[in-house]
Amino acid sequence: MSKKWVYLYKEVAEAEQYTGNWDGVRALLGGKGANLADMARAGLPVPPGFTVTTEACNAYLAAGQQFPEGCWEQELEAMKVIEQQTGKKFGDPNNPLLVSCRSGAKFSMPGMMDTVLNIGMTDEVAAGMAKLTGDARFVYDSYRRLIQMFGSVVMNIDDEPFEEVLAEARKKAGVKSDTELNADQWKAVVAEFEEIFKKETGIPFPQDPTYQIKLATEAVFKSWNGKRARDYRNAAGIRHDLGTAVNIVTMVFGNMGNNSGTGVAFTRDPATGENVLYGDYLINAQGEDVVAGIRNTEPIANLKNEIPAAFQEFVDICTKLENHYREMQDVEFTIENGKLWMLQTRDGKRTARAAIKIAVDMANDGFITKQQAVLRVTPQQVDTLLHPQFDYEAKQSATAEGKRLAKGVNASPGAAVGVVAMDADLAEKWGKEEGKDVIMVRQFTRPDDVHGMLAAKGILTTEGGATSHAAVVARQFGVPCVVGASDISLNYEKRELSVNGITIKEGEWVSIDGSSGEAFAGQIPTVEAKLEEQEDLMTLLSWADDFRKLQVWANADYPADAQRARNYGAQGIGLCRTEHMFFEEERLPIVQKMILAESEDVRQQALDKLLPYQKGDFTGLFRTMTDLPVIIRLIDPPLHEFMPEHDEVFERVITKRVKGETAGLAEDEALLEAIEKMHESNPMMGLRGIRLSVVFPGLVKMQVRAIFEAACEVKKEGYNPKPEVMIPLTGHVNELKLIQPALEEVAKAVMEEQGVEVEYKFGTMIEIPRAALTAYEIAEVAEFFSFGTNDLTQMTFGYSRDDAEAGFLLKYVEDGILPKNPFQTIDVDGVGQLMKMAIDNGRKARPSLEVGICGEHGGDPESVEFCHYAGNNYVSCSPFRVPIARLAAAQAALKEKGFKAK
Amino acid sequence: MSKKWVYLYKEVAEAEQYTGNWDGVRALLGGKGANLADMARAGLPVPPGFTVTTEACNAYLAAGQQFPEGCWEQELEAMKVIEQQTGKKFGDPNNPLLVSCRSGAKFSMPGMMDTVLNIGMTDEVAAGMAKLTGDARFVYDSYRRLIQMFGSVVMNIDDEPFEEVLAEARKKAGVKSDTELNADQWKAVVAEFEEIFKKETGIPFPQDPTYQIKLATEAVFKSWNGKRARDYRNAAGIRHDLGTAVNIVTMVFGNMGNNSGTGVAFTRDPATGENVLYGDYLINAQGEDVVAGIRNTEPIANLKNEIPAAFQEFVDICTKLENHYREMQDVEFTIENGKLWMLQTRDGKRTARAAIKIAVDMANDGFITKQQAVLRVTPQQVDTLLHPQFDYEAKQSATAEGKRLAKGVNASPGAAVGVVAMDADLAEKWGKEEGKDVIMVRQFTRPDDVHGMLAAKGILTTEGGATSHAAVVARQFGVPCVVGASDISLNYEKRELSVNGITIKEGEWVSIDGSSGEAFAGQIPTVEAKLEEQEDLMTLLSWADDFRKLQVWANADYPADAQRARNYGAQGIGLCRTEHMFFEEERLPIVQKMILAESEDVRQQALDKLLPYQKGDFTGLFRTMTDLPVIIRLIDPPLHEFMPEHDEVFERVITKRVKGETAGLAEDEALLEAIEKMHESNPMMGLRGIRLSVVFPGLVKMQVRAIFEAACEVKKEGYNPKPEVMIPLTGHVNELKLIQPALEEVAKAVMEEQGVEVEYKFGTMIEIPRAALTAYEIAEVAEFFSFGTNDLTQMTFGYSRDDAEAGFLLKYVEDGILPKNPFQTIDVDGVGQLMKMAIDNGRKARPSLEVGICGEHGGDPESVEFCHYAGNNYVSCSPFRVPIARLAAAQAALKEKGFKAK
Repeated sequence: MSKKWVYLYKEVAEAEQYTGNWDGVRALLGGKGANLADMARAGLPVPPGFTVTTEACNAYLAAGQQFPEGCWEQELEAMKVIEQQTGKKFGDPNNPLLVSCRSGAKFSMPGMMDTVLNIGMTDEVAAGMAKLTGDARFVYDSYRRLIQMFGSVVMNIDDEPFEEVLAEARKKAGVKSDTELNADQWKAVVAEFEEIFKKETGIPFPQDPTYQIKLATEAVFKSWNGKRARDYRNAAGIRHDLGTAVNIVTMVFGNMGNNSGTGVAFTRDPATGENVLYGDYLINAQGEDVVAGIRNTEPIANLKNEIPAAFQEFVDICTKLENHYREMQDVEFTIENGKLWMLQTRDGKRTARAAIKIAVDMANDGFITKQQAVLRVTPQQVDTLLHPQFDYEAKQSATAEGKRLAKGVNASPGAAVGVVAMDADLAEKWGKEEGKDVIMVRQFTRPDDVHGMLAAKGILTTEGGATSHAAVVARQFGVPCVVGASDISLNYEKRELSVNGITIKEGEWVSIDGSSGEAFAGQIPTVEAKLEEQEDLMTLLSWADDFRKLQVWANADYPADAQRARNYGAQGIGLCRTEHMFFEEERLPIVQKMILAESEDVRQQALDKLLPYQKGDFTGLFRTMTDLPVIIRLIDPPLHEFMPEHDEVFERVITKRVKGETAGLAEDEALLEAIEKMHESNPMMGLRGIRLSVVFPGLVKMQVRAIFEAACEVKKEGYNPKPEVMIPLTGHVNELKLIQPALEEVAKAVMEEQGVEVEYKFGTMIEIPRAALTAYEIAEVAEFFSFGTNDLTQMTFGYSRDDAEAGFLLKYVEDGILPKNPFQTIDVDGVGQLMKMAIDNGRKARPSLEVGICGEHGGDPESVEFCHYAGNNYVSCSPFRVPIARLAAAQAALKEKGFKAK
Repeated sequence: MSKKWVYLYKEVAEAEQYTGNWDGVRALLGGKGANLADMARAGLPVPPGFTVTTEACNAYLAAGQQFPEGCWEQELEAMKVIEQQTGKKFGDPNNPLLVSCRSGAKFSMPGMMDTVLNIGMTDEVAAGMAKLTGDARFVYDSYRRLIQMFGSVVMNIDDEPFEEVLAEARKKAGVKSDTELNADQWKAVVAEFEEIFKKETGIPFPQDPTYQIKLATEAVFKSWNGKRARDYRNAAGIRHDLGTAVNIVTMVFGNMGNNSGTGVAFTRDPATGENVLYGDYLINAQGEDVVAGIRNTEPIANLKNEIPAAFQEFVDICTKLENHYREMQDVEFTIENGKLWMLQTRDGKRTARAAIKIAVDMANDGFITKQQAVLRVTPQQVDTLLHPQFDYEAKQSATAEGKRLAKGVNASPGAAVGVVAMDADLAEKWGKEEGKDVIMVRQFTRPDDVHGMLAAKGILTTEGGATSHAAVVARQFGVPCVVGASDISLNYEKRELSVNGITIKEGEWVSIDGSSGEAFAGQIPTVEAKLEEQEDLMTLLSWADDFRKLQVWANADYPADAQRARNYGAQGIGLCRTEHMFFEEERLPIVQKMILAESEDVRQQALDKLLPYQKGDFTGLFRTMTDLPVIIRLIDPPLHEFMPEHDEVFERVITKRVKGETAGLAEDEALLEAIEKMHESNPMMGLRGIRLSVVFPGLVKMQVRAIFEAACEVKKEGYNPKPEVMIPLTGHVNELKLIQPALEEVAKAVMEEQGVEVEYKFGTMIEIPRAALTAYEIAEVAEFFSFGTNDLTQMTFGYSRDDAEAGFLLKYVEDGILPKNPFQTIDVDGVGQLMKMAIDNGRKARPSLEVGICGEHGGDPESVEFCHYAGNNYVSCSPFRVPIARLAAAQAALKEKGFKAK
């Protein structure tokens, strides 16, 4: 007996048994198929249907596009069952069964794959149906849809010729919308569509319904490997080997007149998270009209007035579904002659704000646990909420000045400013290749446009609603988006948009507010998001804090940064970079003098001058972070970074020499010589970090003196400073043995001078592979480790970040040679392995060893999760990413304990 | 009871019991003390004495220069025993006991530490002795020696004022040598010496013998930590925590007239290894006169005629000692009034040539095993033998032209050419800091001069013999050395040397032949040493080959290198660098065209032109290495290395711009732009190695085609080529998965075209830490690993070699922050750990994995030993170092099995 490739909805229990659990059912039948079966099992009105499994898809693709043994036969069997269930017959002009064929993968990929409706229609069936229903308008409308979709999806015919025929027909009939065309007009359209089909494919439109269904099934299978689908999965991080299922479902018709309709809805508002039914519908239309965003839709609440009974049943079903899935649902429905049919339910995509509100609301209502709430919000969603917003005043005055172009639907929140790009390719070119801020502006978007949407800072469409393609994709990827800004006219030929007499050319600036749905001409200044004002997020993060084990610290060089970090929940400063301070205007000349000093005396004089500045840098930091640890890193970069650029001085010298000018030449030549002497072929691996301390101990001694003078001073003021002195770039324990005790002596001397005791630690960065490999020795000296994962990644991979990220690394990530950019997400196999070794061996030597990470990875959720498992005490990240890290840390802790989002 | 700090010679068995073995006795009593005790036990004539242990020295130094409890008391006790043994009494003018106080560490450090003779003399004792012996000349000569040595060693008085008094005394007496001074003259010298002592120290010369011995003991203890001793130990690789023992030995006098004498001898010739007694003596002198090389000595054979009985006894004892120790001995003796006393025996230092001859002779004579012979020769000694020699013809004609300056003693073999530096500081400055080839030329050398000697390519002295300080140090460190070239006059004021009317100024060139003892004006061309002509070495290496497990391959880019490697015993080519070939004159323009190509066509055209050149590179190599593997590394360096220097083009552009010249400006600007576009901040970590292959696959495909076309061609000629294609710089297995199969396809295509099957492998370098960490994945693709330990060391330490070795790394090694230069000797803890992981994990994935090393470490004996233990299949090094690696590999294998040199 061949494998079971096809499951009727009523066979869902069998699928559950075969796969072992619901997640397995979703993997086998796809999300759509699984949920349709689930709804059918629950007695909800689902049109009879069946699912061809993802396994069949994978087998089909693996065999070079051949149905696996028995699959097609099982599909035919299932059709017979449906015929029995519906009492209709496939291809029978007197009682025809029509079905849809839709893809449905485990994870939803909206609009990414293919659907064919009204399968089963032929010239003969159409004629029969017209007789049977007495509604030839509806029948030929349906038939032309089949021809168009089948042509486009199965046979790869462009939509354009079909759309031209439609436009011509509307024009000829003198109507604005397709629904106004009458039966004869549709019949004429069908004839023209069949012509197009034949012209484009070389064969007539198939008149065998079984052949239609076979080709449609194969088209869905193949669509899994289409470029659009692959791009989407790459962007969304979905595996490529899952395959898609195929759902064959009895057609129901929303376009059978004014007692029919179709719509999509969310059980809560997907933009704000409010607990109200949210969606759109169209009377007398098929579902694709709503999703494609081509016709402007009505808000779902209005349905109550149009088809009240069906609406009430729908509202009740929505409540039931939310209760069943304990999650906000995204549903599709059709009303056929007053009878409600549920066509789909799935967890609804939502904005970050909505995700947080829904999770917090559901937990507060006892609907889910707090642990589930914390697991249901992604760190990326928190990130989105912390994106900048427009400055309120500036927005008001832009509005007053008439710069507000339009108000559309607030489809995905956040403020975005960029230059207009009117197609996806240009948006990608400008945004990705040239690094410009781009707002992609289109009438509406299609799956082909995703590459441009992902490269844009914001998306603005003139058509479509909250569930249109543009809105769904934008929300998912956190791109600010306004849709349906219908006041705006686009002129693709002139490459410009216009509204209220304002014309904006492609390349000119616009600003969009995805939270309010507004679009503006020009650039409106943005302000940072205020965490304090986002109550739901504050609540969620406070729950997260209860669950996490990992502390979250922040990287901050100045008191203002530290204050923000503290406000955002940072439990310490994991990295204060002291060298930034050396670049300040009044200090740089002293720093250069110090560097160029030819005698120790001159050098010391310069250091003495720097001391009070450096001390001043730390007092504010210690006050702000009173009671919390502040890790201050001693000078790290090579000294030549503080000197003028070689080429600049070189050019000056050559120019003067060629011109025979002597003024200042000798000084320039001396400077050039000094710079050339300091030149290193690979400065990243040169005289920096602790190596500088070994060669010029005076500099770091000054820094340690400044740290402890500052700490003593603020302690006297009543604060409680907790300085931790961090020595960068240790590679051999002997470096630390030489430097650390000498610096600790300075610290003790200062505290004795000042008569103040300060709690302190000395430790080192672990950023050289050798340091990680010999952590057992280094931990005997250092009281703490802080992984400098930026440099550790550079050295472990042998990548110079500046060069690589602008060069081959891009290609490596795009081509999948590297699964992720290792400078964004810790490379667990290589860099992570070193970290794990260092932590384990370091703790063997010093059980109390404090371990953190201060590279940029500290704010990356996946890396935070790794750090949780690796045994870090804390991660340190930029203040803005502290909330993200708090959530990620909690999720790691919960996952480790076996908690799940559902 | 306090610890036993002092051992009488007769208590040697107790020391053996305490320490467990003879090595322990040597560590406790020092080499000199242990051997004196051993000789005493064997009934040889050793003056009564005792040893203060190295433990006492360490305790003394650790306690801040305080005698440990009981130590001084035990020393006084031991003195009493000696008084009994000799029947003399310390400080008794009527029957005085005199002793010497000498340092003696576990490992010999000739001249590095301090000795005081004639302790026990005071004004009173001297007067009494003069009466007793009737030889006032001898007594006051001895006394003045005590005052001078005690002043210099214990009180740090300069030798100069003492030497001035002596010179004045000789002048006054009208004699040439000290021995000609009479009693009164010596008495007057003593008075003046006592004056100097008082003037320089502020106290009179101590008249309490016990106080003398106490201070002398302490001086020896302290000398362990003196700068000279530390420098020596750093250079010789001796640990600093061993401490020195102190030997107190009854004085015997070689300066009691013409029936007395003193000498040092080797039981075999330390320069050639010939089995003849070899050494020097002086009649009527104390031992220091011989060792210091101040007086010209007589060859030991002549002693037979002067004091025949003592000579015969001495010869017999030498034979006995060699039989006992089964090793060539370096002995010191004194004859006091015809009675022979043995003052020291130790394993004799020897030249490389002698070491090999002695080891091979002793093994051939069945005196030691072949395993012992192999373990007795150091790889460094083999290295020395492979040093260049002067071209025979050139030397002959230099002699004919009168350029031979002098013939002295051939103290340490090898040819050296350099500029004259007449003091150690200058030799160090020129040699170490400025990288010049320097010959250090001095009258004689002292321990203070070692830093200069080590920085020199050769050493030439006008005084001293084969056992003088200069000769001993030079031999030990393998620096060519000629001593006692007495025809040459030095003028330190004019900074020049002159001989036979030739004057050579400091900074001018000389050539010295340490094998023949000749010195020449100017630069004489050198020729490489011929291994084939060194029979003993060939024998030793053939034994080594029988014992070793590790194969030795060689790095060679050209057929001539490969031929030498094969002659030297290489079993394969571990690294052929293909990029060197791209720099050849006719190829570089094509390479640049390939790099700058803006289209694939133009690039491919350039590659097509390079193909025949590249193929030609390999045919010769494959012929030479027929039957043996040849690993060819695909292009590794960043492409900008093939372009003109940025600054050069930049200067040209600016100059033309300033001058307003337009000729060629546009081309130069375009070139500059291209160069700037290729610029990388850290090219070491940039677009090179396999990354180049990913970005420009055409280049490596051309290389693989060339390799296999060459292999097929020579196979058709009847050779048996075994190419192994090595992909450099892999960091992630996916890089290899992308590139290796594509290259293997090229290989197969070529073999098919040619109709020839060639045995081949594809593999990768492991030089990125991440590759080592993920070896388990990489070995699934690569058939062999070759550790690029140069780059692996760079990345693991985060050191850019070019920058570091010219910068801080020097300081790191000198200050002991790094125990060794990790670019010379594998850093076992860090880099070695990675290698071990990679080998173990790689072999788990592919048990047949071939593992080698092709960094410069492949020729470093310690690193070879590490590779043996780590489980490498082979090491690959420069052809010249192949014999060294063969020996080192054998020694590692023997040591692992527990074989010992003795």
